Formats: sequence, structure tokens, C-alpha cells
Amino acid sequence: MENYSNQLDNVFQALADPTRRAVLGQLGQGPASISDLAAPFDMALPSFMKHIRFLEESGLIRTHKKGRVRTCVLERARFSMMEDWLAEQRAIWEARTDRLEQLVLAKEEFLRAKEGEKGR
Amino acid sequence: MENYSNQLDNVFQALADPTRRAVLGQLGQGPASISDLAAPFDMALPSFMKHIRFLEESGLIRTHKKGRVRTCVLERARFSMMEDWLAEQRAIWEARTDRLEQLVLAKEEFLRAKEGEKGR
Repeated sequence: MENYSNQLDNVFQALADPTRRAVLGQLGQGPASISDLAAPFDMALPSFMKHIRFLEESGLIRTHKKGRVRTCVLERARFSMMEDWLAEQRAIWEARTDRLEQLVLAKEEFLRAKEGEKGR
Repeated sequence: MENYSNQLDNVFQALADPTRRAVLGQLGQGPASISDLAAPFDMALPSFMKHIRFLEESGLIRTHKKGRVRTCVLERARFSMMEDWLAEQRAIWEARTDRLEQLVLAKEEFLRAKEGEKGR
């Protein structure tokens, strides 16, 4: 079974290519056939199909064939996985900022207490 | 000069690996030396250094050497690039949802108008 870490590897790998990012942007506007998706690219169909298969295997799109036309649909849920990972990173930074803030406050309090002792 | 699309390729590629993601998570808690970062991994140092260089070239971390110790620091700004790209995708989907909603509303209005004509 594919685990969470492998799935993240695959989605990030899928986005590390301008053609695949452009296809995802296009599919954000609605489902489209392979030939419509391929039209803007100066690329042989077999090369383009490799990108489509990559996107499908990463779970970022689904495809289905009706007659001779294969249609691609965006799978938005898989985007959430990346957003969640990025949000996790932010949470780590923010926790750290909070700790630093507490350190500074504790030091200020210590200095004020020391100042108070002197004043006595 | 490295353009925006190449930079996106590199950051997404950098995240497509569990070791590199773990290093970034660790650096989110604060700067760390290469040897501290390498410690949790069962990996030869030259292999680990390849990951560090990859992260540095992608702009996700900076490193600096003082004496014999090389320290790594997270470069948060580069994360925003990915967040912006993901936000752009969401904006495309939402624009599409708005258009679909307008279509449905326009159709309802048309049907109501037709109904009104019949009633006259």
C-alpha cells in the first residue's frame, strides 16, 4: 500500500514540471479532453501522455475514456495534502516564535525583579 | 537568470523527498548544524550533503560556515512561493464555481420569465 510519505513524494514530484503545472491550471477551469489539453504545447503526443500518466498516478487528476475520447478531471482533494504539509511547517515556525517570545518575556521579568531588589 | 517557473520546479522537486522534508521540518524549529541534522538519518554523510545542497540550491535553506561547523537556516520566503501557487489554483477553481453558479441563476431566471409569459 502506498503510504502518506510516498504520496507526498509523488504530488510534489508531479508539480516540479511546468507542463504538468499548466495542465493542472487548465483543469482547474473544468474537465478537458487529452487533445484539448495537449493543444497549447509544442510536444509529441507520447511525451504529453507521460505527463498525463504522471499526474494520474500522483492522484492529482482522474481520467476516463468514452468512445475515443479520454477526459481528464482535477482531483482537488490531493491538493489539500500539500496545503496540509505546508500548514504543518507554519505551525512548527509559529510554535518556535511563541517559545522565543516566552524566553524574552521571562528574561524581561527576571531583569525587572533584579532591578526591584536593587531599589530596596 | 533563474526564472519563476524554474524556481517553482526546484522547490517542488526539493520537497519530493522524505529526507529533505524532514530536514526542513527540523529547521523550522531553529537553525542547526549539518551534523545535528544528519544524526537521525541512517545515511552516509556524502549522500546527506547532496540533500543539503539540493535544498540550498532550491533556495529553501541558507547555510554558512563558522570554523569547522556549517549551520543551516530555513528560508521561509521560498515557502510562500508554493503557497502562492496553490492559492492561484484555488482562485481558478473558485472563479469556475462562480461562473457555474451564474449559469444556474441565469437559467432559473429564464425559466421564471417563460413561466410568467405563459401566465399572461
